[in-house]
Amino acid sequence: MSELVTFGETMLRYTPPPGERLETADDLSVDVGGAESNVAVAASRLGGDTAWLSKLVDTPLGRRIKRTLGAQGVTTDIVWSDEGRQGVYYFEPGGEPRGSDVYYDRTDAAITTATPAELATRRIDAANCFYTSGITPALSETLADTTATLLGNAQAAGTTTVFDVNYRSKLWSPEVARETLSGLLPSVDVLFVAARDAETVFGRTAAPQAVGQEFKETYGHDIVVVTHGEHGAVAVTEAGAVEQPAFDAETIDPVGTGDAFVGGFLAQYLAEGSIEGALEYGAATAALKRTLDGDMALVSPAEVAAVIGGDNGLTR
Amino acid sequence: MSELVTFGETMLRYTPPPGERLETADDLSVDVGGAESNVAVAASRLGGDTAWLSKLVDTPLGRRIKRTLGAQGVTTDIVWSDEGRQGVYYFEPGGEPRGSDVYYDRTDAAITTATPAELATRRIDAANCFYTSGITPALSETLADTTATLLGNAQAAGTTTVFDVNYRSKLWSPEVARETLSGLLPSVDVLFVAARDAETVFGRTAAPQAVGQEFKETYGHDIVVVTHGEHGAVAVTEAGAVEQPAFDAETIDPVGTGDAFVGGFLAQYLAEGSIEGALEYGAATAALKRTLDGDMALVSPAEVAAVIGGDNGLTR
Amino acid sequence: MSELVTFGETMLRYTPPPGERLETADDLSVDVGGAESNVAVAASRLGGDTAWLSKLVDTPLGRRIKRTLGAQGVTTDIVWSDEGRQGVYYFEPGGEPRGSDVYYDRTDAAITTATPAELATRRIDAANCFYTSGITPALSETLADTTATLLGNAQAAGTTTVFDVNYRSKLWSPEVARETLSGLLPSVDVLFVAARDAETVFGRTAAPQAVGQEFKETYGHDIVVVTHGEHGAVAVTEAGAVEQPAFDAETIDPVGTGDAFVGGFLAQYLAEGSIEGALEYGAATAALKRTLDGDMALVSPAEVAAVIGGDNGLTR
Amino acid sequence: MSELVTFGETMLRYTPPPGERLETADDLSVDVGGAESNVAVAASRLGGDTAWLSKLVDTPLGRRIKRTLGAQGVTTDIVWSDEGRQGVYYFEPGGEPRGSDVYYDRTDAAITTATPAELATRRIDAANCFYTSGITPALSETLADTTATLLGNAQAAGTTTVFDVNYRSKLWSPEVARETLSGLLPSVDVLFVAARDAETVFGRTAAPQAVGQEFKETYGHDIVVVTHGEHGAVAVTEAGAVEQPAFDAETIDPVGTGDAFVGGFLAQYLAEGSIEGALEYGAATAALKRTLDGDMALVSPAEVAAVIGGDNGLTR
Amino acid sequence: MSELVTFGETMLRYTPPPGERLETADDLSVDVGGAESNVAVAASRLGGDTAWLSKLVDTPLGRRIKRTLGAQGVTTDIVWSDEGRQGVYYFEPGGEPRGSDVYYDRTDAAITTATPAELATRRIDAANCFYTSGITPALSETLADTTATLLGNAQAAGTTTVFDVNYRSKLWSPEVARETLSGLLPSVDVLFVAARDAETVFGRTAAPQAVGQEFKETYGHDIVVVTHGEHGAVAVTEAGAVEQPAFDAETIDPVGTGDAFVGGFLAQYLAEGSIEGALEYGAATAALKRTLDGDMALVSPAEVAAVIGGDNGLTR
Amino acid sequence: MSELVTFGETMLRYTPPPGERLETADDLSVDVGGAESNVAVAASRLGGDTAWLSKLVDTPLGRRIKRTLGAQGVTTDIVWSDEGRQGVYYFEPGGEPRGSDVYYDRTDAAITTATPAELATRRIDAANCFYTSGITPALSETLADTTATLLGNAQAAGTTTVFDVNYRSKLWSPEVARETLSGLLPSVDVLFVAARDAETVFGRTAAPQAVGQEFKETYGHDIVVVTHGEHGAVAVTEAGAVEQPAFDAETIDPVGTGDAFVGGFLAQYLAEGSIEGALEYGAATAALKRTLDGDMALVSPAEVAAVIGGDNGLTR
Repeated sequence: MSELVTFGETMLRYTPPPGERLETADDLSVDVGGAESNVAVAASRLGGDTAWLSKLVDTPLGRRIKRTLGAQGVTTDIVWSDEGRQGVYYFEPGGEPRGSDVYYDRTDAAITTATPAELATRRIDAANCFYTSGITPALSETLADTTATLLGNAQAAGTTTVFDVNYRSKLWSPEVARETLSGLLPSVDVLFVAARDAETVFGRTAAPQAVGQEFKETYGHDIVVVTHGEHGAVAVTEAGAVEQPAFDAETIDPVGTGDAFVGGFLAQYLAEGSIEGALEYGAATAALKRTLDGDMALVSPAEVAAVIGGDNGLTR
Repeated sequence: MSELVTFGETMLRYTPPPGERLETADDLSVDVGGAESNVAVAASRLGGDTAWLSKLVDTPLGRRIKRTLGAQGVTTDIVWSDEGRQGVYYFEPGGEPRGSDVYYDRTDAAITTATPAELATRRIDAANCFYTSGITPALSETLADTTATLLGNAQAAGTTTVFDVNYRSKLWSPEVARETLSGLLPSVDVLFVAARDAETVFGRTAAPQAVGQEFKETYGHDIVVVTHGEHGAVAVTEAGAVEQPAFDAETIDPVGTGDAFVGGFLAQYLAEGSIEGALEYGAATAALKRTLDGDMALVSPAEVAAVIGGDNGLTR
Repeated sequence: MSELVTFGETMLRYTPPPGERLETADDLSVDVGGAESNVAVAASRLGGDTAWLSKLVDTPLGRRIKRTLGAQGVTTDIVWSDEGRQGVYYFEPGGEPRGSDVYYDRTDAAITTATPAELATRRIDAANCFYTSGITPALSETLADTTATLLGNAQAAGTTTVFDVNYRSKLWSPEVARETLSGLLPSVDVLFVAARDAETVFGRTAAPQAVGQEFKETYGHDIVVVTHGEHGAVAVTEAGAVEQPAFDAETIDPVGTGDAFVGGFLAQYLAEGSIEGALEYGAATAALKRTLDGDMALVSPAEVAAVIGGDNGLTR
Repeated sequence: MSELVTFGETMLRYTPPPGERLETADDLSVDVGGAESNVAVAASRLGGDTAWLSKLVDTPLGRRIKRTLGAQGVTTDIVWSDEGRQGVYYFEPGGEPRGSDVYYDRTDAAITTATPAELATRRIDAANCFYTSGITPALSETLADTTATLLGNAQAAGTTTVFDVNYRSKLWSPEVARETLSGLLPSVDVLFVAARDAETVFGRTAAPQAVGQEFKETYGHDIVVVTHGEHGAVAVTEAGAVEQPAFDAETIDPVGTGDAFVGGFLAQYLAEGSIEGALEYGAATAALKRTLDGDMALVSPAEVAAVIGGDNGLTR
Repeated sequence: MSELVTFGETMLRYTPPPGERLETADDLSVDVGGAESNVAVAASRLGGDTAWLSKLVDTPLGRRIKRTLGAQGVTTDIVWSDEGRQGVYYFEPGGEPRGSDVYYDRTDAAITTATPAELATRRIDAANCFYTSGITPALSETLADTTATLLGNAQAAGTTTVFDVNYRSKLWSPEVARETLSGLLPSVDVLFVAARDAETVFGRTAAPQAVGQEFKETYGHDIVVVTHGEHGAVAVTEAGAVEQPAFDAETIDPVGTGDAFVGGFLAQYLAEGSIEGALEYGAATAALKRTLDGDMALVSPAEVAAVIGGDNGLTR
Repeated sequence: MSELVTFGETMLRYTPPPGERLETADDLSVDVGGAESNVAVAASRLGGDTAWLSKLVDTPLGRRIKRTLGAQGVTTDIVWSDEGRQGVYYFEPGGEPRGSDVYYDRTDAAITTATPAELATRRIDAANCFYTSGITPALSETLADTTATLLGNAQAAGTTTVFDVNYRSKLWSPEVARETLSGLLPSVDVLFVAARDAETVFGRTAAPQAVGQEFKETYGHDIVVVTHGEHGAVAVTEAGAVEQPAFDAETIDPVGTGDAFVGGFLAQYLAEGSIEGALEYGAATAALKRTLDGDMALVSPAEVAAVIGGDNGLTR
């Protein structure tokens, strides 16, 4: 069975060419993205044995998602549905001073009715790690329940539970998010939270390390990783705090950077067990992701090592 | 005010390149299509003064539809909505022996909640013609009611009502379609119906001309045009029946052929009033449409005249 | 009738892909651009009711221009011609240290024979504002006369006349430009002039605010806006001078930046009447334009407001 | 373990756009193709549990091949090599009277040194079927030996051995081919041979059915399927001969048609065991392949069933 | 010096993608075409030593033409001009029943002022053959004079003069064409004329062979080749008439077919001297051209030989 | 005969779109590049009369190279071969912190067997300059011998020999490179060497000017140009040292920058004879190259002059 199992929604992403607008572009490129599958792909490419669980419609759109993830070495265990939709989102890349825009069209996606009974939960129980994010419980009440059950059962089965808060203002309000997430966090062993989300959702305004400590104390996590964008990340554990700066990156496509961080972190943590090494690996994976189109971190261990080693020259 | 007003749903169409599959294509082309706006575009390009009424979401996707139709000279009078979705569909072109495939993703489109009270019905009352199709009442119960009201009021206002049966098996069953449409048809002055739909929905299996006569007698239409694909069309009126063969065409994209027929028919009928001329004009417009990508008949009066005149040579 | 009417030449623009050369590129992208239609498009998208007058050849090239502007909500009132050409220009984007290049192919464009008698001048008389630029009189002697007549008649009809000097060294010499423009400027109520053009054409080398004051005194303008590129703009009126810095922008395509500034300025000025607000709106529109391909500022009021408000973050 | 295991070389295919030449095209599309992986892909998509064994260079080119096949559900068991090349071929599509052209650049591909000792032969022994083709022994002497060993051992292990003659004049002469293949054929249970190859390589000029009978008698095959292009195929077994006509097809890309036939045949034969059904399934899969770009038959069981059932209409 | 020298205008051709319209296509492909350079390119690729004389503007557009022809082995001897334009034309491919359309934008091209004094006429005098077509004298009065002078001087210098009537109704009327061409034809040794042009311009309505005989007698040509499209061509010489049927071809792009015929004819005639061989070679080159995008016949001697030999199969 | 003759391998370069990976990109752009042909192209476009000698396979791939260079005005004198391959390389553009990657697939290229006896060495003897680089002798033992012979004979014939060390770690080790190159350098009149290569291959760690002096003294060169990337270059001659800073450049594609420098240097040096002028010209050409896609410096003398003159503004 896999070392790392993830569960969540994966969407198709439609993007106009650079400099063009959704209103007028005649062609859209198609990508596949979702927080939990992005994490699985990054970890898989970096050597992890990973699986992704989800529920998809049995159309070319749903099958495309399965095949795309399979191509990256992720084991997919899908509940195929004749009901519901394939969620999509539109990404219109910006450029200073024009912000990037995201338009979701994910209502009634097939996954919104997914229950523990139909999912391959035995894979979770048998894995080292189970990962999902705050996007999943935001998608439907059914999924909020399912997420709670999966996290609780995983922890009970001895599987390390990993969770990224990933607050999305287009999916729910801070108040509803806080209420739902507060019920889930006690079942989480390893928490990733952006400093911005800690403030927006939980009202935590302290410095990142202190925020990490607060979460750890409140919910009993083993590890809390607080990310703060260009400033890097800090991991808080029983043994203390570890800081990791971000690597500079020329950004081609920022989507999926946080997922690449988590995927890189987990791949390394599962392989070596060192927080310092995992943070560095995650930060390098995230920086590489920014140089690539699409939501997925199509990187290699050698590339991550080169970033960490500071070697980025052209060898002709 | 416009001579011809149409009402209905318009979708975005996403199409992979020729020979590629939805499952694997990395780019999708974007088109705009809907039976009622296709009719308005064809009629507008052929000289008609047309308007299209609908309800759209106020996003780049919805605005794209308004702008695309506006570029073709169609006056758009839109109810902008913050609720509902922009409907889309996927078209995977086939080739013998592989059929083309269509995947709808139009559930909960903004238009499904459109009521007569919010629509610009004064445009309908002031027009010569009002057109909608059997797709519209199939989309929601609200729209079935709205369609009935619009047709009834238009007829009462002295506007000629035009209706194309346009049966879509992915939207409703023949039984439900028959029940709903039977209630609408008495309000229809000019009916277009494919011989195939006459059989599937209404169980009419006679020859096209006889089918036309049957509809005319049953529902009191002034004109019934029965189309039978490659075999052409026949119009039945009080004055008798007129046959029109189809023009040969090298098909690049078949979608919208029927709408081009109706649009060409109406443009000519409104301008000249002759059934023979309108049928010929419609058939030529339909043939031209088949040679062009997209749902809309981007043709000119000169091109239609050239087809009718049998002149299709290259002049260099 | 429209609040803002513009008159001028609009060309097709052919551009090779980034990093490729006109000499070797196998595909050219097609855009539509002209100072006066760019202003109309920007103002229309930002809420203004605008019209564009011109003379075009009745070919797909000419019709394309009409349709493209119509899609952006601009009312087009065109003199269709069987004589003359559709002007085009080639834009080869540069990158330090290679300058961008522009190659005009606009000789004998249909508009070069346009006279007041054939143009829809009633639209000008009925509008709040009439806009044209120094490019128009540079195109032919006929157009120099036409421009003078239109400005004079507009002013006489109580329509505010707006003019952008827009000196183009490939069209005429500074000496000829000065002579012609000097005859036009007394009919101009609101003048836009780049500091660089003020120097090249009129020999004005003072600081921007002083240059604005000099023009105001010499020609009797109500408002003079002097733009000086990255340094921003200054507006001089009876009430004094108002400075507006430029917003930082990541430039995808610089063409049309000045027109976006004018279009944004006018949209806001017509709506609110404040010079400060109009300058800020113009500067934000200009900055947004730089992030988009093509000559037209395909922006929205919400985006302009976000730039002014300093909000350019990605919300996912 | 898999029902069907295949072994052979898979190349990258570079193709210019339709109507363009290799000499001048500025872009080449990239596909993945090889007789044995094509068979595996077709069988996998049609429900078979398949695996592909090969030897690849550990570069993005080699990894692309593994990932592309993995996306189609094929289990890949690869010997990764630091020596040798990734074979590629160039395909220039023709059109009457210009023939299509193929340029191989496959010398010294990594697979040319593959030996049984390094390959995952346990997968072959545990499978129902093992498939390779006459291309494999043509690539190197080592591969000729390896092919002989794999076929012999598979047969000894009770795995049904399947072989397609697939003669390629650019790889070897008829004389050398005949000598090598004659040594392999006694180890083959199910043989596919084109009538053209039977004549060129083995001098068999009888009618297809007779040719099949001759091979069966000479080499002791259980099944011989003789294909003769547009005329269809005939299978000869102990129980007699079964004819199968080809389905008409609009050809977008003919490459891989034969492999699709074999893949469809085997998928159905493994599932149902009927020669008639397998031939029909193979012929339908081959016809569908012709309508799709690329070497792989990206088809579904429903599409194959529709071809067999004669249903190829557009349902909108 | 070259065996074959040609003189004429070469344009850029802009073409929308298949199925798209000039009015709406966002990208245009760029090709280089002109009757006389097309002939030079075909002859050069088929082994002839060719040169092309012309007058071009010294911009990237003009230089592109020189470089494109140079890439095909044609020696270019250009008068570079700062005056005049680069002619372009737009080609909108049709499909039954929609005819292809051509829009010229070639007025005031630099070549329209070309005089014998500035052209490299020594190359003509030293060559075996000089070729130009009826398009050249149609472009301007200056060019009509220049064409007459070049043909006369060439013939006087012992160079075989070759001329293709190439009537273009968009350039001049039949009457003017007849008057001008009648003055040129006595200086022509080898004439190519389409049966259609013989009728339209010269009122010759006899069968092709008789038309050829009439021209021969009237103007004293050594060889007259009358082409009649799908029906092939007939050459009339002192020795009698030779018929050549056209080869069937799947047409991707018909433009330049006639020029390919002439280029193939001349390459073979210069090399071998046989009328029969030259006709066959020309017909095969023309058929191959139809399968390729663009105006130029990018073919090889081997491909021409394969068409003549009836070998058009795919060898993989 | 030509002023400058170069000899070396030219490859096809395949590049995925920006932001995409070789592993997944569906299209690759095709370029033509090789150190020695890049130098010839740059010099040719800047006014030099240049020729390129090489050995190519007689396929569309080989012919493409000849035609592409011919289009840039380079005389090509090719040994056509039926043996060997056309070398290709893959370029995957990076972005901080991801380095660009190059994958060679050039083993057994046709040129690897090229001998002086088959090459057009008379062109070298008759030229002012002969150029090759350290890549050539690295490709095969035969080529190492050929390079030595060509350099020695050229020098003996009075042709100035020019050599760029161009060390490639993927082709040979520093030790082997040093041994081979040490034997060649005494035959070199003008040496270009990157400071990095001087250290890696020759262990020279002094400042660039001192390194230049060391080479000059050791091998007797007339001119040594030591380049050190962003820091510029220094030329050491009998008359002393000349420094040249690099021009700032926005890099679209860095490949071929060094070759553009040499090509620009030689074009100017052959025309004017000044070291200072040649260095400046080379640096400007190199900077321009960085703004353009592909290996070749598709620049003009006017653009080089503009960079030197500091004029890089857009003139519209």
